[in-house]
Amino acid sequence: MTYEQLAGQIREKSSYLCVGLDTALDKIPQYLLKEKDPVFEFNKQIIDATIDYAVAYKPNIAFYEALGPSGWESLQKTIDYLPKEVFTIADAKRGDIGNTSNMYAKAFFENMHFDSITVAPYMGSDSVEPFLTFKDKWVILLALTSNTGAQDFQFEELANQKPLYQKVIEQSQNWGNYENMMYVIGATRNEQFEHIRKLIPNHFLLVPGVGAQGGSLKDISKIGLNNNGGLLVNSSRGIIYASTEKDFAHVAGQKAKELQEEMKIYLNEL
Amino acid sequence: MTYEQLAGQIREKSSYLCVGLDTALDKIPQYLLKEKDPVFEFNKQIIDATIDYAVAYKPNIAFYEALGPSGWESLQKTIDYLPKEVFTIADAKRGDIGNTSNMYAKAFFENMHFDSITVAPYMGSDSVEPFLTFKDKWVILLALTSNTGAQDFQFEELANQKPLYQKVIEQSQNWGNYENMMYVIGATRNEQFEHIRKLIPNHFLLVPGVGAQGGSLKDISKIGLNNNGGLLVNSSRGIIYASTEKDFAHVAGQKAKELQEEMKIYLNEL
Repeated sequence: MTYEQLAGQIREKSSYLCVGLDTALDKIPQYLLKEKDPVFEFNKQIIDATIDYAVAYKPNIAFYEALGPSGWESLQKTIDYLPKEVFTIADAKRGDIGNTSNMYAKAFFENMHFDSITVAPYMGSDSVEPFLTFKDKWVILLALTSNTGAQDFQFEELANQKPLYQKVIEQSQNWGNYENMMYVIGATRNEQFEHIRKLIPNHFLLVPGVGAQGGSLKDISKIGLNNNGGLLVNSSRGIIYASTEKDFAHVAGQKAKELQEEMKIYLNEL
Repeated sequence: MTYEQLAGQIREKSSYLCVGLDTALDKIPQYLLKEKDPVFEFNKQIIDATIDYAVAYKPNIAFYEALGPSGWESLQKTIDYLPKEVFTIADAKRGDIGNTSNMYAKAFFENMHFDSITVAPYMGSDSVEPFLTFKDKWVILLALTSNTGAQDFQFEELANQKPLYQKVIEQSQNWGNYENMMYVIGATRNEQFEHIRKLIPNHFLLVPGVGAQGGSLKDISKIGLNNNGGLLVNSSRGIIYASTEKDFAHVAGQKAKELQEEMKIYLNEL
């Protein structure tokens, strides 16, 4: 998907919502377990209920990998089921030496047809660049994550007095651009968000951490939105597990709608 | 597997060789493609030919993931085929927020029965610690990798004048110990290797980059060996693709034997 197509979707749906598909067998309504493929059945109903309010879907790959080969089949069916106009994110946090990153790129871009993949930066340029050689595909690089462990290294002050996450953002400007790279910036990082937005005014930012982890959609939107949206705000558990009863899909749709309606307000204020 | 069991294997086989199973359909002898499961058939023959000379096997997970569900089946069969006394490494370079890392740990430790997994440190403590809660399982943390991109961040000088990779090693001492953590240190990093060995005299180090990438087994062994071995030196392409003819397994066995015989000399010199 191109930058323009994504920006167009955001305008059309008045939404920059990403639905995180962290689908686990012990969390979904238990009556679904009698289905042949409970994971796909759950995802399908979630997608149907939220598709009007979301511009992106983000399966968390660990949850599928934990199920073995059948998990990969459920994942593939989920991706195939999603309409072409939504942006798909493989939340895989991969990153390895060149020829290995290239294998991961093939797996997620060519075989599974994801639009994007999350990538960890620690191994540097040659671990990221193979993902950038695929046309209209995106790298979403970890910069400043929402978890407490982000304190261990990402905030580390370098000799030039900049924090490591800033170095990651600056260095990676040599590898890609706002049309093929995004950054993960946690919603719990308000203080840094403003500075980051100045550094990269045009890039899309994938923002986890709204809801359960305490980030505020309002704060992040005020700081992070740009003329093309420029944000993808993710909610996983807050939507997909809002109800674990038979009405789970309906309730998920309601939660997505609430977020979309709030997003519409912030978009209109631009 | 425990530290003592691994050290015992190294003594018994006079070897600290790890065979990297980077098995790709376009690289293996093409006559194997008529087999029902060419990847497993290749791995099986490689394992049979090298098992006397190697103490560890390291499937590169990207290569299996790139094949879709059937790749995961080939991987599981490979792990099941390996004798219990060899140390198995899932070279997966995972790392995510706590509940997600826990899913990855379940996938590789519980479902697939790997002894260890490589983990990227960027997301910090809560991305690594879930892997350390499994008894007799190991985290192999990326510290200083052998690729050129390592220059981008790993060597970055911090405000305290130490490089980032050193901070990763020091900080992670709070998370695990030499009985459940190892570090990836590239064989191309002689200059740093000596200092790293002083920092962590007892930890096992997983060393890629001997052979194709230019690292010297002799140099690394002189610097890195400790009384229990303390090294796992990996060779992938140099062994498994030494021949791509019908004699591939035999030639792989010869290459593994050559490395083991050289390792025996260095072990005897301790």
